[in-house]
Amino acid sequence: MFRKLVTVEEAKKLLDQNFTPKPLGIETVSLSEAHGRVLAVDIISPFDVPPFDRSTVDGYAVKADDTFGADEDRPLSLKLCGEVTIGEAPKVKIGRGMAAEIVTGAPMPEGADAVVMMEHTVRKGETILVHTSVSKTENIMRAGSDIRKGETVLKKSVLLSSHEVGVLAAVGAAKVNVYKRPRVAIISTGAEIVEPGKQLASGKIYDINAHALSAEVIECGGEPINLGIVQDQADQMKTALKEALTVADVVITSGGVSVGPTDIIPKVLDMLGKPGVIIYGVAMRPGKPTTMAIINGKPVFSLPGHPASSLLTFHLFVKPVLIKMTGRTEELPLTVKAVTSERLFPARGRRTYVTVTLKRDKKGKIMAYPVPTGASGAITTLSKADGFMEIHENQQFVHAGETVTVHLFKPEVYYSLMK
Amino acid sequence: MFRKLVTVEEAKKLLDQNFTPKPLGIETVSLSEAHGRVLAVDIISPFDVPPFDRSTVDGYAVKADDTFGADEDRPLSLKLCGEVTIGEAPKVKIGRGMAAEIVTGAPMPEGADAVVMMEHTVRKGETILVHTSVSKTENIMRAGSDIRKGETVLKKSVLLSSHEVGVLAAVGAAKVNVYKRPRVAIISTGAEIVEPGKQLASGKIYDINAHALSAEVIECGGEPINLGIVQDQADQMKTALKEALTVADVVITSGGVSVGPTDIIPKVLDMLGKPGVIIYGVAMRPGKPTTMAIINGKPVFSLPGHPASSLLTFHLFVKPVLIKMTGRTEELPLTVKAVTSERLFPARGRRTYVTVTLKRDKKGKIMAYPVPTGASGAITTLSKADGFMEIHENQQFVHAGETVTVHLFKPEVYYSLMK
Repeated sequence: MFRKLVTVEEAKKLLDQNFTPKPLGIETVSLSEAHGRVLAVDIISPFDVPPFDRSTVDGYAVKADDTFGADEDRPLSLKLCGEVTIGEAPKVKIGRGMAAEIVTGAPMPEGADAVVMMEHTVRKGETILVHTSVSKTENIMRAGSDIRKGETVLKKSVLLSSHEVGVLAAVGAAKVNVYKRPRVAIISTGAEIVEPGKQLASGKIYDINAHALSAEVIECGGEPINLGIVQDQADQMKTALKEALTVADVVITSGGVSVGPTDIIPKVLDMLGKPGVIIYGVAMRPGKPTTMAIINGKPVFSLPGHPASSLLTFHLFVKPVLIKMTGRTEELPLTVKAVTSERLFPARGRRTYVTVTLKRDKKGKIMAYPVPTGASGAITTLSKADGFMEIHENQQFVHAGETVTVHLFKPEVYYSLMK
Repeated sequence: MFRKLVTVEEAKKLLDQNFTPKPLGIETVSLSEAHGRVLAVDIISPFDVPPFDRSTVDGYAVKADDTFGADEDRPLSLKLCGEVTIGEAPKVKIGRGMAAEIVTGAPMPEGADAVVMMEHTVRKGETILVHTSVSKTENIMRAGSDIRKGETVLKKSVLLSSHEVGVLAAVGAAKVNVYKRPRVAIISTGAEIVEPGKQLASGKIYDINAHALSAEVIECGGEPINLGIVQDQADQMKTALKEALTVADVVITSGGVSVGPTDIIPKVLDMLGKPGVIIYGVAMRPGKPTTMAIINGKPVFSLPGHPASSLLTFHLFVKPVLIKMTGRTEELPLTVKAVTSERLFPARGRRTYVTVTLKRDKKGKIMAYPVPTGASGAITTLSKADGFMEIHENQQFVHAGETVTVHLFKPEVYYSLMK
């Protein structure tokens, strides 16, 4: 069965036509579990924060009018009528000429509209000498001055960091509705791969992809389900993919899709449901064997076995889908302009991706240095690279010194370049 | 007891003199739990990766010399002597004039030093017609070309992201030695505060700090232990602090340290161990009541009760200590230059921190707009702010239009400004 390779854009379009990534539903978690989750509803405050007028100082709650004209030399005297403590409803009412002792954070008693700071007063028995005038609302934090009742304090789709968790606590949200994390089943294939920790027999190498892809899934806000290593045989692969499609919302396989005698994954996928395989390879390098299927509404990404290729194709095709499934507002694409250090050629007729490290030269230019990949199998390529650049299949070459766009793996890289 | 406020720098110096933050020891986790942890040892590869020469194509393993002079029109013929499959030790040996079928990723058989791609050959029974010449090592990924035996592939103190997890898998690290996470006990105090989810009686507000600080601790790589709300009474506070010092490596309290009649935390701290309280307040705004103690080798940070103040003082004093305790190499301070939108005054004699939002104006300048705080209690201040600027106590004011340094809460903010 010969199928034409599609371009990167055609692949994205085909994926888009056959699968609409969206959140998988809502679950309720406790506030202590909310950090790092994606809010699934707008949060509207059911009350004012603070819920009452509060004193912002230690002093005396008064009627501001009663202090009019007071100054250091000519104090006015008020009658002490009680005290207001923090955390309790005030038991006093302030009439004309009266004052109640109040501490920082305590609710304002009825009738009072300002607080005179302790240091501007002298107490003589039940008489308070006020040595300054205060205006209405002075030294008061008004009810609702932080958050008004009915105000939308957080919008759905926000990723909850510490500050948003604080806002949730402020409005009393002990339980929080967040989007379910997409579950992502991960299958590694290949007769040569062995689980790390096991003995490495002759001809074998350790499975890198299942672990690196699991970590990528976590970074996207998904929940990885590592189904281990499955041999490249139709019956075993069919069983594994069936299980994957049962337990997960998205399936990723790596390996077993190079064009060779053991290329059975596409055949198995087509048996499992409709529409089956929609992309039988992409005109790109690395990443040519990348295969995608939709099985009864769930996407299956069959990525190449080489670690650098599988992580690159994860970034290009899987990550944008996962981010949408988490319910997050889409991220800014992380790119930076850089100058290539050497002339680069695309693979003939294929979109070419070159992993690079970025460094400022003496003149301050951001330079992109290709990371030698040896074969595309090199995992160290990725651990050393800051990002990757793209060479279009129609380009003859990229000049040394040409300005190109580099896609970054992490925002921190960008920041460290700018310092 | 009257104690002089110390400056921000004096506070940092005192803390530094009394407590040396360092990792708390090493624990072993499985590879699937390693993501997000901090590596505690250098990782040295015990073998070459790949461990053997591998074919990078499907084709025939040959002696390169035997193909010399072959081209499209004049093929040379070699004798097929077997095949090499992936994942198994080769059973054939390549002598002069011989070839073995080989698939991508399979180990090179003894005697062969190059691979001819399948498409440059024609098979006739046991004879292989080779239509191209290959040079030594052509189409081979050499043993150790990704990672050499004895090579240090990861340095200790690195935060493990997906790429590093891939490298760990490559060298077969099923178990990983990581630094223990610092455990951080969090206590909220105040007669007015109530746990979110409970009924909000008159005069009460919800506890924001315990939840926001827990999330901050997670973001620093620590493990929060929320000990709930403790009343501002000596016996209760003593019991809670004792428990905190037993279960955790670091203790954070919030509230109960304003200068007032209920200021009992410093007194209790001094009873619990040596040297006791080392900082009785900092000449800063907000954050003046910030108190720090060292009790038998463990730091206790008593932060103000106002949410914005407690998070700001957490950023300034607690976060740098926690980051060092996680074992991570220290982060770049996240700062950006911005232009103030208005004239700003410091509080008299106190280092003043102003939370700001950052935005580019029409001319491309990054402008810093102060976020109105009302009183320093406003939590929404922080959820809206991108960072904070500092006004030195000796400065009279900051001009509108002056360029200042803004400390960012997150690197993403920086990136979005630069686009």
